[in-house]
Amino acid sequence: MNLREIGEFGFIDRVKAGCLIREENVIKAIGDDCCVFRTSGNLVTLLTTDMLVENIHFLREAIPPYLLGRKALAVNISDIASMGGIPREAVISIAIPKSLDIEYLDAFYDGIKSMAREFDINLLGGDTTSSPEHLVINIALVGEEKEDEVLYRSGAKPGDVIFLTGIVGSSAAGLDILLNKRDIDSWEELFGAHHNPTPHIKAGRIIASLKVANSMIDISDGLASDLGHICIESKVGAVIKEEKIPTSVKFKEYRNKYSLDFEYLTLHVGEDYVLLGTVPRENSDKLEKALKAEDCDYFPIGRIIDGTGIQLKMGDGSIKPINPHGYDHFRK
Amino acid sequence: MNLREIGEFGFIDRVKAGCLIREENVIKAIGDDCCVFRTSGNLVTLLTTDMLVENIHFLREAIPPYLLGRKALAVNISDIASMGGIPREAVISIAIPKSLDIEYLDAFYDGIKSMAREFDINLLGGDTTSSPEHLVINIALVGEEKEDEVLYRSGAKPGDVIFLTGIVGSSAAGLDILLNKRDIDSWEELFGAHHNPTPHIKAGRIIASLKVANSMIDISDGLASDLGHICIESKVGAVIKEEKIPTSVKFKEYRNKYSLDFEYLTLHVGEDYVLLGTVPRENSDKLEKALKAEDCDYFPIGRIIDGTGIQLKMGDGSIKPINPHGYDHFRK
Repeated sequence: MNLREIGEFGFIDRVKAGCLIREENVIKAIGDDCCVFRTSGNLVTLLTTDMLVENIHFLREAIPPYLLGRKALAVNISDIASMGGIPREAVISIAIPKSLDIEYLDAFYDGIKSMAREFDINLLGGDTTSSPEHLVINIALVGEEKEDEVLYRSGAKPGDVIFLTGIVGSSAAGLDILLNKRDIDSWEELFGAHHNPTPHIKAGRIIASLKVANSMIDISDGLASDLGHICIESKVGAVIKEEKIPTSVKFKEYRNKYSLDFEYLTLHVGEDYVLLGTVPRENSDKLEKALKAEDCDYFPIGRIIDGTGIQLKMGDGSIKPINPHGYDHFRK
Repeated sequence: MNLREIGEFGFIDRVKAGCLIREENVIKAIGDDCCVFRTSGNLVTLLTTDMLVENIHFLREAIPPYLLGRKALAVNISDIASMGGIPREAVISIAIPKSLDIEYLDAFYDGIKSMAREFDINLLGGDTTSSPEHLVINIALVGEEKEDEVLYRSGAKPGDVIFLTGIVGSSAAGLDILLNKRDIDSWEELFGAHHNPTPHIKAGRIIASLKVANSMIDISDGLASDLGHICIESKVGAVIKEEKIPTSVKFKEYRNKYSLDFEYLTLHVGEDYVLLGTVPRENSDKLEKALKAEDCDYFPIGRIIDGTGIQLKMGDGSIKPINPHGYDHFRK
């Protein structure tokens, strides 16, 4: 079915169902010029926004619309996770090219709604428009948190242990599978890591509420680039051990089979959406226990040092400086 | 200068200056995964978002980037105005095609910042990405207001006076000037109405704080369509008098010169960004006085009635049903 048959307002009526999953604190959902909600006076408000552009962030023929919807919301949830926050209310803007039918959009919104339900997020409105050629999606997500629990990029201190809450590189391998048209069924786990990431809200909340970590970010641009952000904002340097970088069995198998570069895949591609943080050495064990008690992972991978820049310590003890650049939208 | 020379993060550093104009309640501005701010526990939060797509909402060669920046923020501010709220914090997403140089983007952000300063809005972050072809802008704007002052589309009651806080049609004439390549200098006022609208925050606050109006919306899709939204959400009908629809002297001059249809220009094009509301008859004078005391306009144009649909009462006393459709992004 074509959008022309139901029009803009018919389309909005169609996607409205299932958007409000938690009525508490919501005063006005879809259907007015603004959505209106109460925030908790004793919590601070977090706000993040992410735009996904066809042929830049995704290829329409390569990702099913249901997974595109899930990922569009997931990348925003991950930004809330990286501060240790709780995601709450979202608004979605979409620019729709004529070539998209309603079935595609239904699947896309089903994906968004499934991700919203998993993380208790209300979809409270947005903006719907046509597009001359490419599908563009923008989500703005509001979260909340106790002020003294919020974790920033800027708090890392020399001596801190650098940790990850999950494996890296699988998403990069998933992208490689896609770009080189390898058999998806054989590498489902890696393909899923790229197309259907799960934001680490639970780990973020445990870390934030324990109040022992000094800084945090999520891995979107790549471990090197994102650790670089922590180093620049915190005015410190970092050393990470190559052998400590956590990857999955399937990742190792894929990388060996196609002789791919370990550093490139784990450090410079990103989109892993796990959390990267730093914690004073004396609190590392406490944090590890708290995370593992709730079935979350904790991988110490190096240390914050005085100075600037990121160094990679190889298995043979040699040190290699790492370029902190991940993907730059304009340089290449 | 080309964006490639400074890269994504160099560009973000460049636009950062002048974004934070009010430090009160802001905990983290640009430079982390989320912005973080305090909201007032005794106020409710408003959230709105609008996407502007090149060749759909604007032609890049027809609107100077400074005015495009102003308008991108103005349309969001107008949504906050339509609820009677106070705009506070904004995040801006932009997808930038390779053909845009930094000078264009500087002017665009200067426009956004000038509008932000006028309305005391902080620009707290956003997302910057490349675009395969078209410039796309999305702004999400947070506002606040006392809960018992918020005005919705849904409160209109039979007998209510329908009012406007400004003239309509000038923006439609401005668009006509553009599409028919008329001389802009001769019709600067009309061109400005289309390209440089001023949101009616002040009028919105007066109306909301007086607590006498029953419903409100801003004129974005067109008087017919936006009054239609009030009628549908309030389950009422409306009668407006053609002779009461307020337009400017320049508008009348332009319309006569080119023999354009009055109803089409004033009812069906929109983008006037004035407020349309309803108020019980006994409070109409009180509202008018309060608005005029603060140099705001008040134009009563008709009445809310039982039933459905919008009727236009002509000068000769005849009644004409009005199609509530404004611009629909998908139907045509």
